[in-house]
Amino acid sequence: MLCGAEKRERNKEMTVELICVGTELLLGNIVNTNAAYLAEKCAGLGLSCYYQSVVGDNEQRLSETLQTAVKRSDIVILSGGLGPTEDDLTKETAARVMGRELVEDAASRAHIEAYFAEKGMTPTENNWKQAMIPAGGIVLPNPNGTAPGVIIREGQTHVVLLPGPPHELIPMFEEHVVPYLKKLEPGVISSQTVKVCGIGESRVETLLMDLIDGQENPTIPTYAKPGEVHIRVTAKAENEKDARKLIKPVVKELKSRLGNNVYTTDEEVTLEKAVVDLLIANGLTVTCAESCTGGLLSARLINVPGASEVYKSGYVTYSNKAKRKILGVKKSTLEKYGAVSRQTAEEMAKGLAFLAKSDVAVSITGLAGPDGGTEEKPVGLVYIACSVKSQVTVKEYHFAGNRMAVRAAAVSAALVLMRSCMLEYFSEVTFGKKK
Amino acid sequence: MLCGAEKRERNKEMTVELICVGTELLLGNIVNTNAAYLAEKCAGLGLSCYYQSVVGDNEQRLSETLQTAVKRSDIVILSGGLGPTEDDLTKETAARVMGRELVEDAASRAHIEAYFAEKGMTPTENNWKQAMIPAGGIVLPNPNGTAPGVIIREGQTHVVLLPGPPHELIPMFEEHVVPYLKKLEPGVISSQTVKVCGIGESRVETLLMDLIDGQENPTIPTYAKPGEVHIRVTAKAENEKDARKLIKPVVKELKSRLGNNVYTTDEEVTLEKAVVDLLIANGLTVTCAESCTGGLLSARLINVPGASEVYKSGYVTYSNKAKRKILGVKKSTLEKYGAVSRQTAEEMAKGLAFLAKSDVAVSITGLAGPDGGTEEKPVGLVYIACSVKSQVTVKEYHFAGNRMAVRAAAVSAALVLMRSCMLEYFSEVTFGKKK
Repeated sequence: MLCGAEKRERNKEMTVELICVGTELLLGNIVNTNAAYLAEKCAGLGLSCYYQSVVGDNEQRLSETLQTAVKRSDIVILSGGLGPTEDDLTKETAARVMGRELVEDAASRAHIEAYFAEKGMTPTENNWKQAMIPAGGIVLPNPNGTAPGVIIREGQTHVVLLPGPPHELIPMFEEHVVPYLKKLEPGVISSQTVKVCGIGESRVETLLMDLIDGQENPTIPTYAKPGEVHIRVTAKAENEKDARKLIKPVVKELKSRLGNNVYTTDEEVTLEKAVVDLLIANGLTVTCAESCTGGLLSARLINVPGASEVYKSGYVTYSNKAKRKILGVKKSTLEKYGAVSRQTAEEMAKGLAFLAKSDVAVSITGLAGPDGGTEEKPVGLVYIACSVKSQVTVKEYHFAGNRMAVRAAAVSAALVLMRSCMLEYFSEVTFGKKK
Repeated sequence: MLCGAEKRERNKEMTVELICVGTELLLGNIVNTNAAYLAEKCAGLGLSCYYQSVVGDNEQRLSETLQTAVKRSDIVILSGGLGPTEDDLTKETAARVMGRELVEDAASRAHIEAYFAEKGMTPTENNWKQAMIPAGGIVLPNPNGTAPGVIIREGQTHVVLLPGPPHELIPMFEEHVVPYLKKLEPGVISSQTVKVCGIGESRVETLLMDLIDGQENPTIPTYAKPGEVHIRVTAKAENEKDARKLIKPVVKELKSRLGNNVYTTDEEVTLEKAVVDLLIANGLTVTCAESCTGGLLSARLINVPGASEVYKSGYVTYSNKAKRKILGVKKSTLEKYGAVSRQTAEEMAKGLAFLAKSDVAVSITGLAGPDGGTEEKPVGLVYIACSVKSQVTVKEYHFAGNRMAVRAAAVSAALVLMRSCMLEYFSEVTFGKKK
C-alpha cells in the first residue's frame, strides 16, 4: 500500500523542458533532430514536455533561458555547447545559474588523455576545460567524444547537460540519463512499441477505438511514420515487473486485432530489418530492380547490418532500354502498356528473379514527377511487383507529395509488400498448397 | 546621402524570433524543419535570430511565450495552430496578446468556399473559424490550404502567423513574408550563395581569411554541408541594384580564389544537379556500381528531374560474386587485395564502363560498419573510382560516423570526384592532350 504522500507524489506529473544551444540552429544551418529525439524519449518515459527552446552560445541569453526553465520545469535538459572552445559555455553558465563552482574531474581528464593518445594526437590547453565539472554534479562518461555530460541536482530540480553531436548525445542519454530519470519517479514507467505496417493510422485507430477511448494505464498513443504506424504502450507501476504485467496483455490484444500487420514489438527493429530478418530466417536471397526509386530500396535493405547474407546484387533500370536489355522486359509490353504499368512491373520482377537467381525479386516502376504525368497516369502512380519463388504479386499505388516524397513512400510500400508476399507464401507452404 | 536618423536606423540590427506551435513537436513525433527553414531564410535577410521556441496548443503557455517574444524581438514569426479545430488557438491567442478583435475576412471566406467546392466537399462550421482575422491584420493568402496567414503590426513590432504544414508555410513565406520583411529595412538586403565542393570548410576559411576578417558589407558567412561548403554573400544597400553591385565583385573574387571548386552560384542548383547538368552539357551518359552505398549514389542522381537524359542503368554489386559476375572484377584481385581496395574499385569502374557502354562510370566500395573493420582496413575506409572515357581515377577516403553517415559521405565524395574527373578530362581535351 502507498501512503497518501507517495500517492500524491505519483499523481503529480513530472515536467521536462529542452534547451538546445547552438548558433548553427539559430542560423538554420542544421535541423534540430536532438529536440525531436529527446522529446520522443521523454514522452516515452511519461514525462510531460511543455517547452523547448533554442538559444545561441551567449552567456546572458542562455542564463536567462535556463533560469526561466528551472523555475517552471522539474527536469531541464540542455544539449550542445560542451566543446573545448571559448564559444562553448553551457557548462560554465549552468554552473553559475545553479550556484556551483567548476572543479576538475580526474576520470574525465584521464579519458581525454586516453582519447587523444589513441588517435596519436596531443590535447591542447582548451581540451582540459572539458574535464571541469560543476561541483557535486554527476559525470556522464562519453565514449564517443571528449565532452562528458553532467547532471546537477538541486532539491527537486534536475539539470542535465549533454553534448550536441547526436552520435555522442544518443548513447549517453540511453545509457545514463534514462536510468536516472526512471529512478526519479516513485514508481517506474515502462513502454513497448508495437510497430505496424500495411494499414494506415486511421484504420489502426478504428480497430482500436474502444481501447484508445478507455486508455488510462497503459496509454496507447499512435504515431504515424512513413509506411508505418507505431503504437507505444506505456504503463506506470510500482516496479518494472508490475509495469510489464500491465503492458503484456495490451500488446497481446493489439497483436490479435492487428494480426500480421504487426511486424515487430522490438524497439530496435526497423521495417527493413524485419524484412531482412525474415529473409535470413527462411534462407532466402533477395534482389531489386528499381526505376523511379533509383536504388533507394536496395540502399535501405543494405543499411541493415548483416544484409550481405541475403542481398547479393541489384539493378537500377531507369531507361526503357535497361528494362529490356538487363531484365528482358518485352519491347511490345513497353510499347503497349508503357514503362509505368502493371505488366512492365511484372516482367521486370520475373526477369530479375531469373537474372539474379534470387528467391525474392522486387521491381518498382513509377512516376515520381515533377513532370511526365498525364490524366490517365498521374504523377505519384507507382507499380511494385514482388516475386517469391516465382509467384508474382503486383500492386498499384498512388502516392502524394514531391519527387522525393513519392520515392520514399514507394520504398516503404515495397518493404511492406515484400513482407506480406513472403508471409503469404509461407502460409501456403505450411497449409500444404505448395510443396 | 542618408540623414542621421536613417543611418542610425540602418545600423540598428533587426531581430526575429520563432515560435513553433504544436503538440506533435513537443512529443517528438515530428522534426522541426520549419524552424530550420525560417531561421535560414531570416539569416539570409540579414535578421538576427536569438531565440526559437516550441510550445503546445495551450493558450496560457503560448500567450506567455508570445508576450516574452514581442518584448525582446522586433519580428515574431509563429507557425502552426491555424487549423479549424478547437485545439488550434494561435490566431486567437495572438489577437488577444496584441489587443485585437477577430473579424471575418470576406476574401478568406470566399477562398475556403471555393477550396471545398473544388474538392467536391462541404465545409463544416469549424472551417469558417479560419476566415476570422485579427482586426487590422494583413491577410496572407494560402493557395495550398484553407488557413490564411496574418501579419499584425503594432508600432515597431511585427507578429507573423503562418500555417504549420511546410507545403503551405514555405510558399506563403517566400511570396508574402519575404517582400514584407525586406520592406522593413530602410534599404534592401540581397544575397547570393557560392557553393563549393572538393575542399573543406577550414581550407575555404584559410583561402578567404582576409576577406572574412574584413567583411562588413557584404558579409560572407560559410556553412558546412555534407561534402560541400556554402558561402552566403549578403549585402545591404539602398536598392536591389546597389546591393547587386556590392555582391558581384565579391562573388567574382571568391570564384577566382576557389577556382573549379565553385560548382554553382545558383541557389536552386544542388551538387547532384551540377553533376547531371555537366553530363547533359557534354552529351555524356553515366552509370554507377555501388557496394557499401547500396544504390544511394544512383538514387541521388536520379532525384534530379531530367536525369533520364544521362542516366540509363546502374548496379548494386554488394557481394564479391556480383562484383565478379556482373562487373568482371578478377577473382585474383578480390583474393589478393580484398573487396575494399583501390584495385577492386578500379576494376569495378572499368568493367562497369564496358558493361553499360557509358561515358562516365563510377564505382564505390568500402566498409560502412558497424562490423568488419580491421586495423589495416578500418570502418569508414572507402575507395571510389571514376572512369571518364576510359580514363580512370581512384581515390581513398576515410569517413567518420555510423553506417548511414559513412554511406552519405561516400555519395557526396563520389559526386565531387565525378565532377573533378569530368572537368579534368575536358581541360585536357581543350589543351590538346586528348583528341
